[in-house]
Amino acid sequence: MWELRGGEFSKVPDAEIIAVGSELLTHERVDTNSLFITEQLNALGVEVSRKLVVGDDRRRLTAAIRDALSNVEIVVLSGGLGPTEDDLTRDAVADALGRKLIFSQGICDQIEERFRRFQRKMAEINKRQAYLVEGADALENPRGTAPGQWIETNGETGGRIIMLLPGPPGELKPMFTDQCVPRLVRHLPPQVIRVRQFRVAGMGESDLDQLIAPVYTKYTNPATTILAGAGDIHVNLRARGETEEEVERLLNEVAPPIEELLGDRIYSRSGDSLEAVVGNLLRSSKTTLSVAESCTGGLFGQRITSIAGSSDYFLGGLIVYSDAMKTALLGVDPALIEAHTAVSEEVARAMAAGARSKTGSTYAISITCEAGPRSATAAAPGTVFLGFASEAGTDARKLHLPGDRNRIRNLAAQSALDFVRRKLMTT
Amino acid sequence: MWELRGGEFSKVPDAEIIAVGSELLTHERVDTNSLFITEQLNALGVEVSRKLVVGDDRRRLTAAIRDALSNVEIVVLSGGLGPTEDDLTRDAVADALGRKLIFSQGICDQIEERFRRFQRKMAEINKRQAYLVEGADALENPRGTAPGQWIETNGETGGRIIMLLPGPPGELKPMFTDQCVPRLVRHLPPQVIRVRQFRVAGMGESDLDQLIAPVYTKYTNPATTILAGAGDIHVNLRARGETEEEVERLLNEVAPPIEELLGDRIYSRSGDSLEAVVGNLLRSSKTTLSVAESCTGGLFGQRITSIAGSSDYFLGGLIVYSDAMKTALLGVDPALIEAHTAVSEEVARAMAAGARSKTGSTYAISITCEAGPRSATAAAPGTVFLGFASEAGTDARKLHLPGDRNRIRNLAAQSALDFVRRKLMTT
Repeated sequence: MWELRGGEFSKVPDAEIIAVGSELLTHERVDTNSLFITEQLNALGVEVSRKLVVGDDRRRLTAAIRDALSNVEIVVLSGGLGPTEDDLTRDAVADALGRKLIFSQGICDQIEERFRRFQRKMAEINKRQAYLVEGADALENPRGTAPGQWIETNGETGGRIIMLLPGPPGELKPMFTDQCVPRLVRHLPPQVIRVRQFRVAGMGESDLDQLIAPVYTKYTNPATTILAGAGDIHVNLRARGETEEEVERLLNEVAPPIEELLGDRIYSRSGDSLEAVVGNLLRSSKTTLSVAESCTGGLFGQRITSIAGSSDYFLGGLIVYSDAMKTALLGVDPALIEAHTAVSEEVARAMAAGARSKTGSTYAISITCEAGPRSATAAAPGTVFLGFASEAGTDARKLHLPGDRNRIRNLAAQSALDFVRRKLMTT
Repeated sequence: MWELRGGEFSKVPDAEIIAVGSELLTHERVDTNSLFITEQLNALGVEVSRKLVVGDDRRRLTAAIRDALSNVEIVVLSGGLGPTEDDLTRDAVADALGRKLIFSQGICDQIEERFRRFQRKMAEINKRQAYLVEGADALENPRGTAPGQWIETNGETGGRIIMLLPGPPGELKPMFTDQCVPRLVRHLPPQVIRVRQFRVAGMGESDLDQLIAPVYTKYTNPATTILAGAGDIHVNLRARGETEEEVERLLNEVAPPIEELLGDRIYSRSGDSLEAVVGNLLRSSKTTLSVAESCTGGLFGQRITSIAGSSDYFLGGLIVYSDAMKTALLGVDPALIEAHTAVSEEVARAMAAGARSKTGSTYAISITCEAGPRSATAAAPGTVFLGFASEAGTDARKLHLPGDRNRIRNLAAQSALDFVRRKLMTT
């Protein structure tokens, strides 16, 4: 029954993630735990071959677990460990394995103690959470009442590991990292996995792919994946091998030519976000930034201040959604707007200069664009001007961005961050 | 073989959604098509009982389709209809049904014609997209090259419908709405479904549930679901019946007592977002708004301007991330900040008054808070003051918000929007 314990899988195992909960089958909810779990498993070299969402239905959940056990070596379940009758993960796993649920007085005492600490009395219903699947190890949950469970067994086709994790991400994440990963590592064949990532701004996915495909398609190890968001592309090279040296050699064969092709469009090699990279450049040069935003309405400011400690380098900004505000708050000459319209290079430069002068920042960036759908200006939706002001004067960029209002605004803010990055690297 | 055609399911069918694509099994990608499909199916009274994500693996995909067909009446597949060898949905559906793939010259001509329209030549590889599963109807795809497919068949346990839809949401959505929904309706037993939704701000999920559970738990029809985001809760009552009158009677029994309990915390009964509701109140009273943001750094401005046409009522704002900026841009007396700190009721009022005076707006809202994690001020992370200025003077609210930096910022912006709504309704 327990041959796996202490032993290794004979090959790198595959995993399936099952998210449990009827609320995850509504049109407003998406399972995000699986993204975290996938990242953690991938880092250990374990691939996720399926992801499933099942409602609070014992029969369906049991069938899904049986099915997963017949296909993969590792089954990770999240959710359904609460105290109510809808919380059926424990029962379904026991059903699928043909085992009993066994009451643990020790766990019950811990749950009761937790309630006492918060000056509350444990309800009778919470005793449900003190049942373990026969043979399971309890995983401690310092952030909640439901303990996790870790089960090692042998299926018809070899060793199996089943993890039962609580649904709330604040409970699941530390439990997985602190308790599941160390246990899992003991069962994995020795291998080294290293990922090298390039984050790229300022080019589209298909252009990027066309540029670097001639290099990466020649290799399956490292495996290359390209993930694209709004104006933000992550190129991941993942190499596996038996030794550190082998893996480094593999990466050093493929990464440098890709790096050379992408050049200064790479904004990060360390996983930092674009706003963090810009923040680090400002901090290390002891300079400050301000912003003047029209169509983006505060999006640039919101992104740059999403980094804790951004008050070290970001002073503030002006949201100038109307022409009158561009004059009232930034001192842009109305005649300039009249002559060139609000979406123009001239006004973008004047907005940046105005923000710099009003805030006293070292640098200022401005964004003026027509986001659509109705054109309030003469410009076509997607027309964007970025302005930049420094001691040396002003600079500007014109862009044509695709998509709907939301996408144009996101791309405009992203492009503005990248414009600041490029200016800071050459200034 | 085709008994279902023209006929109805004998009961309301269940559905399973299968998203196909290895990129959906990475840690950076989540399947969102299923949310749209779920919303559409639910509106027809069809429940989604499972959602699955499978990689580009013919054997696994075939097994998943077989499994789905043995469990539910409707199987919706998205993705895997492209021209490459990784696009295996057509092949897997044919395998699962034991049918052949049949080349359609008509579809091939359409694809070729589409390439010609864009001044490009169709690659040989695109011919793969002209194969239909034996017996399938092609679903036109005006936005892309891959046609969808609609299959009606009979499984061992009754009639089945299988839909093959393209992965890109811009192609999938119109195809589903325009072609799948009308076909599906013909096979559903006659029933009327109506949803009544209350959107609520300013209370937590558990408080709300405690308040209204005594009402809604007495009924299974309408079914009540509660979906909570950051400071934003949607209460959905979904009633089914045979006639419009029956459904209205069911809703009119449950909705009014819930509505009464929630009172003015309901901000929308029409599905409008909070920023849209605030916008409509401003537009209909022909008044204008401006904002002064500290910790939220532009998030309020970004939300209010996410609505097309918001320039009618939103003038602009000032992002004052440092104490010096509160003085420089808003004219807040430095002595006031010295005496009360930047996170105080006094400074919140002065910020709102400053924004109103600088922009000339009818009303102004201000947000000053300690978002953490490190406390730059004397206040504990989560302490928020909102200020409001109008012709009548200033008002303020103090809040203690839970969570990390990101959550505190989101809740602060949400609370500020709701504060404006409440002031506009009483002013």
